[in-house]
Amino acid sequence: MRIVDLIDKKKRGLNHTKDEIDFIIESMMNGTAPDYQISAWLMAVYFKGLTEEETAYLTEAMIDSGEVIDFGALADSIVDKHSTGGVGDKVTITLIPLLAAAGVPVAKLSGKGLGHTGGTIDKLESIPNFNTKLSVKELIEQVKKINVAIASQTQNLTPADGKLYALRDVTATVDSMPLIASSVVSKKAASGANNIILDVKYGSGAFMKTPEDAVELSKLMVNIGKILNKNITAVITSMEEPLGRAVGNSLEIIESIEFLKGHIENSDVADLTYSFAAIALMKVGMYDSKSEAKEFLKELVHTGKALEKFKELIEAQGGNSEVINNYDLFELPQYKVECESKKSGYIHSIDAYKIAYACKILGAGRDKKTDPIDYSVGIYLNKKSGEAVTKGDTLYTIYSNDPDKTKIAQQYCDEAFAISYEKTAHSNLIYKIVKPKEDDDVQ
Amino acid sequence: MRIVDLIDKKKRGLNHTKDEIDFIIESMMNGTAPDYQISAWLMAVYFKGLTEEETAYLTEAMIDSGEVIDFGALADSIVDKHSTGGVGDKVTITLIPLLAAAGVPVAKLSGKGLGHTGGTIDKLESIPNFNTKLSVKELIEQVKKINVAIASQTQNLTPADGKLYALRDVTATVDSMPLIASSVVSKKAASGANNIILDVKYGSGAFMKTPEDAVELSKLMVNIGKILNKNITAVITSMEEPLGRAVGNSLEIIESIEFLKGHIENSDVADLTYSFAAIALMKVGMYDSKSEAKEFLKELVHTGKALEKFKELIEAQGGNSEVINNYDLFELPQYKVECESKKSGYIHSIDAYKIAYACKILGAGRDKKTDPIDYSVGIYLNKKSGEAVTKGDTLYTIYSNDPDKTKIAQQYCDEAFAISYEKTAHSNLIYKIVKPKEDDDVQ
Repeated sequence: MRIVDLIDKKKRGLNHTKDEIDFIIESMMNGTAPDYQISAWLMAVYFKGLTEEETAYLTEAMIDSGEVIDFGALADSIVDKHSTGGVGDKVTITLIPLLAAAGVPVAKLSGKGLGHTGGTIDKLESIPNFNTKLSVKELIEQVKKINVAIASQTQNLTPADGKLYALRDVTATVDSMPLIASSVVSKKAASGANNIILDVKYGSGAFMKTPEDAVELSKLMVNIGKILNKNITAVITSMEEPLGRAVGNSLEIIESIEFLKGHIENSDVADLTYSFAAIALMKVGMYDSKSEAKEFLKELVHTGKALEKFKELIEAQGGNSEVINNYDLFELPQYKVECESKKSGYIHSIDAYKIAYACKILGAGRDKKTDPIDYSVGIYLNKKSGEAVTKGDTLYTIYSNDPDKTKIAQQYCDEAFAISYEKTAHSNLIYKIVKPKEDDDVQ
Repeated sequence: MRIVDLIDKKKRGLNHTKDEIDFIIESMMNGTAPDYQISAWLMAVYFKGLTEEETAYLTEAMIDSGEVIDFGALADSIVDKHSTGGVGDKVTITLIPLLAAAGVPVAKLSGKGLGHTGGTIDKLESIPNFNTKLSVKELIEQVKKINVAIASQTQNLTPADGKLYALRDVTATVDSMPLIASSVVSKKAASGANNIILDVKYGSGAFMKTPEDAVELSKLMVNIGKILNKNITAVITSMEEPLGRAVGNSLEIIESIEFLKGHIENSDVADLTYSFAAIALMKVGMYDSKSEAKEFLKELVHTGKALEKFKELIEAQGGNSEVINNYDLFELPQYKVECESKKSGYIHSIDAYKIAYACKILGAGRDKKTDPIDYSVGIYLNKKSGEAVTKGDTLYTIYSNDPDKTKIAQQYCDEAFAISYEKTAHSNLIYKIVKPKEDDDVQ
C-alpha cells in the first residue's frame, strides 16, 4: 500500500477500506507518511467526504493510537457530556453536580481551552486550590466514592487526533464534517463512558453555521457511536448569543453556583441544564418522561442537594468550597466598569463572537496551551436578548485589570449589542435532539 | 498574508491575486510555508482550479524563482519544441536538424527522462561521445554558428517548478490542468525562445486521456503564452500506439537517421516531423502555405541537407558522426530476438504503455535521475497498426542483454498487440492545432 495511491483514491471520490484508513493513521503516527501527504489527503477528504463506515474506521484508528480509560462494569452507567464550544457555556459545571446528586455517576475529562475564554478546566481552576490533575485511578475511585469527578486530559488519549487536528488547523481543513465527527467521538470514546451527551452548537460563532449542518453532524456522530457501541445523544442548540450572563472564568463559576442555589430558574442556563440532565436520566433508564425527570431535578436544586454535591466535588478535589458562600474568595479584578445603554428599546441580538473577543482582550483566554489566564476578568451581560432597556440602564459590566484593555473591550461590547424599537422573536435554545434508533425529538 | 487563509480562499473557490500567488511561491522557496501547507493548497487547486490569469501568475512566479536564458535579439527567431511525452517519440531529434537546415535557429534544453524509456538527452547520449552538458554561453554560441544546439537542463531554471512537481508527484496532484500548463510553459519561457511548439499528446498512455482535455490544456497554454508574450502553438496528437517503429535509446536515433536519409517517408514519424517543421516555418514567417513549406522541407531531406546538419550537430557537440553511416558503432545488445505472430489478420492496436513497460524491464529507462540507462536495448515494431500480418511473420524484435528480461518483455509485447480479422480505421495522428489569435486548425 502506498499513501500516494490512497490520496489519489480519495481524490477520485472512492471509499477507503478499514485497512487503508488504519494504514494512513499508522503511517502518520510512525512517521513513514510525511505531513505533506497527510495534509493532501485531508484536503481530498474535505472535498470528497468520508462515508459513515470510513468515519467510524477513522474514529477507531484514532482511539487505538493511544490509551483508553477502562471503567469496567461502571462504564455502562457513567455519563459523559461534551459541547462543541460556546461563549459563556458553563453547562458542564452546572450539569455534573446535578446528575451526581440524582444518582447518575459522571466522569468528565476535559482539555485546556484554547481561544477567547478558558475551557471547563480553566473555569474550575479559578476556584482556589481546585486540583484537576487526577490520575486515571484517582478519577475512577472518586467517581465510585462521590459519583462525580472532573479531570484535565493529561493522559495520552487519541494522540492521532491531536496530530491530525494540528495539521487541519494550519491547512484550512478543520471544517469537514467527518473529520469533526471522528475527532469528537474518538476523544469521548477513549474517555471510557458508554453514555455520551453531545451539545452541538450552531450559529455564526460555531463550526456549524446552520441548524441543518448541525443535524447532519449530529446524525453522523450518533451513527458512529452505534458502530462503536457508544450510546450517543446529540442535542442541537443555538449559539446566537452568549449562554447565560457571565463570560469569563470565575464569573461563570459564580453564575453556576447561582443556578445551583436556585436563584436563576428562568434562564437559558437553567433550561439547558435541566434538559441535558433529563436526557441523561432517561438515557440510563431512571425516567421515561422528560417532565417527571425535570421535576425530580428541580427538587434536587430546591432542596440544596445539587449545591451540596458541588461542594463535595470541590472538596474532593482539594478546592476551597467556602467560595460558594463568599464570592470574594475568588481572585478579584481591579476594575468593575458598568457600561450604560446609549438608547432605549429591546435587545435584538448580542454577537457572541464580539463578546468573546472582548474577553480575550481582557485576558480571559489563551492562544497557546502554555499561556497564562486571568481568572478574574470577564464580562457580565446585564441585559439579554428580548429584554427591554432604557437609555442609561447598565447594559453590561466589564471586569478588568487594565484600563486600556477595558476601553478596547468596551468598543467590542458596544458593537456586540443590537437594540431595536420593537421586541423581536428568538428561536428556541434547543433545535433538535438526535438519538440512536428512535425518531429524533423536535423541540 | 497567511498561507492558511490562502488555502482556505482557494478551497472556497475564490481567485488569488498576483500578490497572493507570488507569496505562496516565495514562501515555499524560502521555507516559511511548510510542504504540508503547499500540498493542501495543491489539492485545493486540483478541485477548484485556477483561472487563466491565476495560471499566468503562477507561471511567472515559477519563472522568476530561477535563472532565465537570454538570447537577446535572437529570441524572436529561435524556435523551441516540447512534447508532453510519448512512447517512441523521437520527433525532437528529427525536427531540429531539419529546421536548422531550413534556416530556422533551434535551441533546445531538455531534462533527463524519468520513466520507461530515456528522454531526448538520453537518446542523443547513446551516440558515442555526444556531449549535452553545454553552458548557456556555449549553447548561444553554437546556435549562432550552426543554427542548432541541444543541451541538458543543468541550469537553475524554474526551481519552484521542480519543488512543486516533486510535491505533486507524491500527493496525487499531478493531473491538474493549470498545474501542468504552468509547469510546461514556465520551463519553456525560462529557456529563452519566443517561438514555442508544444506537442500535446492524448490517449490512454498520456496525461490527457481524451482529445477534448488536450484541447483545453492547449488553449490554456497558448493563452498563458499570450499573457507572457510567448508565441505558443500547441499541436494535439494521438498517442494510441508508439510513434515510429523503434522504442529504446539508440534504436530511436537509428530510426531518426533513417528518416533524415529519406528512407521512411511514409510513416507517422515523417508526418509529424514535416507538420511540426511546417508550423515552425510559418510561425517565423518564412512561408504562408503549409503545403509549400512541406515541399521545401522534403527537398532538404531528399538532397541530404537535413542529414548533413545532423552530422554538423553531432560533431559540434563532440559526438562520433560516423554512426550515421555505420550503426554498429552504437553500443550493441547481446541478443536480438525476432518474435513471431501467433495469428493472421490486421494489427488492430498496439498498447503503447505495455511496449514502454517491456522496454523498462529491458533497462531502457530509469526511476531515479541517478539510475544508469542501457542505451542498446529496446523493441522494434516490425508491424504497426493497420498492417496485414500472417501467422509466423515477425511481429516485433527485442534487443536485450539478459535472457530472463527478454522473456518477461516478450510477455508484455505479446499482450500489447491486438490482431483483428478485418482492417479497422485509425484516427488522424494530428487532432487539432491551437494557435494564438487566429482560429484553430482542425486537421
